Amino acid sequence: MGNKQNYVVAVVGATGAVGQQMIATLEKRDFPVKEIKYLSSKRSAGTTLYYKGQEVIVQEATPDAFEGVDIALFSAGGSVSKELAHEAVKRGAVVVDNTSAFRMAEDVPLVVPEVNDKDLFNHKGIIANPNCSTIQMVVALEPIRQTIGLNKVVVSTYQAVSGAGVTAIEALKEQAQAFLNGEEATPSVLPVKSGEKHYQIAFNAIPQIDVFTENGYTYEEMKMINETKKIMHLPELKISATCVRLPVISGHSESVYIEVDKEVTVEELKTILSDAPGIVLQDDPDQQLYPMPFYSIGSNDVFVGRIRKDLDNPLGFHLWIVSDNLLKGAAWNSVQIAEKLIELSII
Amino acid sequence: MGNKQNYVVAVVGATGAVGQQMIATLEKRDFPVKEIKYLSSKRSAGTTLYYKGQEVIVQEATPDAFEGVDIALFSAGGSVSKELAHEAVKRGAVVVDNTSAFRMAEDVPLVVPEVNDKDLFNHKGIIANPNCSTIQMVVALEPIRQTIGLNKVVVSTYQAVSGAGVTAIEALKEQAQAFLNGEEATPSVLPVKSGEKHYQIAFNAIPQIDVFTENGYTYEEMKMINETKKIMHLPELKISATCVRLPVISGHSESVYIEVDKEVTVEELKTILSDAPGIVLQDDPDQQLYPMPFYSIGSNDVFVGRIRKDLDNPLGFHLWIVSDNLLKGAAWNSVQIAEKLIELSII
Repeated sequence: MGNKQNYVVAVVGATGAVGQQMIATLEKRDFPVKEIKYLSSKRSAGTTLYYKGQEVIVQEATPDAFEGVDIALFSAGGSVSKELAHEAVKRGAVVVDNTSAFRMAEDVPLVVPEVNDKDLFNHKGIIANPNCSTIQMVVALEPIRQTIGLNKVVVSTYQAVSGAGVTAIEALKEQAQAFLNGEEATPSVLPVKSGEKHYQIAFNAIPQIDVFTENGYTYEEMKMINETKKIMHLPELKISATCVRLPVISGHSESVYIEVDKEVTVEELKTILSDAPGIVLQDDPDQQLYPMPFYSIGSNDVFVGRIRKDLDNPLGFHLWIVSDNLLKGAAWNSVQIAEKLIELSII
Repeated sequence: MGNKQNYVVAVVGATGAVGQQMIATLEKRDFPVKEIKYLSSKRSAGTTLYYKGQEVIVQEATPDAFEGVDIALFSAGGSVSKELAHEAVKRGAVVVDNTSAFRMAEDVPLVVPEVNDKDLFNHKGIIANPNCSTIQMVVALEPIRQTIGLNKVVVSTYQAVSGAGVTAIEALKEQAQAFLNGEEATPSVLPVKSGEKHYQIAFNAIPQIDVFTENGYTYEEMKMINETKKIMHLPELKISATCVRLPVISGHSESVYIEVDKEVTVEELKTILSDAPGIVLQDDPDQQLYPMPFYSIGSNDVFVGRIRKDLDNPLGFHLWIVSDNLLKGAAWNSVQIAEKLIELSII
């Protein structure tokens, strides 16, 4: 494709929660856009959206809609990616796919630019954007791996509803209002829209994100486990996850226990993290300073705090990691991959 | 004091969130009450409450108010317990104290009846009720310790606001309504009312419960660590905790990673837990069955689910433990201690 100044960019799933943030991020980053295309399902086609104040009519995502597209950012669900990503590549586009469709495919790089941007050189048209809860964790774990090694991770997540899309945000708000009015809600979205049972998320916590796999872990948990190993090139990493949905609009939080190879002080670990790309250290107990999801909304950063030494294992540490799941966890990481492709002259 | 049919029972902090549940629990259990006394701060004295339909006027908690009291259930804050528990004991009462005032005192048994009721025999007038988040965890851990040993615990909590009292419940509701109205809230209660900074809890998660200690852990985290060791008689247990406040009214949840001494299957561990006292197993991924805080409200049980083998360590397991923090975490455990004192003829 060769280097050029400006690109034809398609946003697939433009009307969704992540699609909207992708558009806002392209605008904010002043991404070198020659032409923007908003694509969606047939149902949403025809909607009028904007790019930098200019009207853009959403078109149906069909194979031919990708003619002339240089970069296609997909976030319209795994089935859409499976159907259309290769069609886009065939027509000359590089696809950055935010779904789980290709993440574990051997010939698809799974990239978090702060961690493994070099993997972009191996792409064959499709680059996968990892799961939101994985991204923010590996941004914090990679500088640790590089400096003091990493051999065990136990993570418990506190995940926002926006990871399940606009309908989940609306469901949380409606259920919360019903509860405050003393009325009963009729849940129909979470934990899994197509699932048999639905539970209230307002004033609740649901320990299920995505469906269950045969080993008793959910797909979300297995995504965190498998994607972390792939992104960090640590196939032998000992890692387990428990993923929980919270009544939080946006901003995922993670309580992470790690075991490292080399003994360091908490202060040394703080320095390692504050020097690392993409991370903002928020860690001062005296000032009650620590990351919180509500206050992370709108930022591209990964916030890390509550860094403590384990009280028994001198190689054990505890961290609290927070990021806006729609931004670093999705839209920003996708646009950042696109920027990296340009920066590294891969596109 | 000797055995007798009926007891003069005092509830100290009767107007509080836990006090109210203590009264409801005494009623529901048909506790052998000869006379009930509701005690409180000067501010709340004079309030009219009820016991089994009969009016009871709340009196100010003074030393002399304990004259003739057999059993005093304290839940009015640590300073009230420090001031008045010994006065109650001096006047012949046995005190079950729900504050942290005496929990770690060597001569005070810290009791969860399912775990260490025998410790009640050593009481010297005061029996401490453990921290809410500790109680539900040890109920689940004790049968594991008994059957397959226990040597490491990493817990991340998901705690409800009712643990911080009625004002925290009101704050959550007010903030949630303000947010839904598009207004800004002015937080003034959480994480710690007397603290310098207050954060919104509605649609947020706050990784601070109680104030910080010098090692970077909060008091809540150190309570879980130290109390678990004391209750389970495991001073060498490797245990760490991260405690997080959620926008949940009642019901604490816990993501718990454990390492045991003896290899068992998940099915064997489920049997161990379902056979144990105080536990309801809710664990069937095919039926989307797992514990959730919203649905735990009003039950005295500890709900356990999401039981999985660690994917790397054959001696590692993951559990999800939920209970109503006002009941098993506070009021029910206190009343249960009082019932045990009678059953074991200790009072």
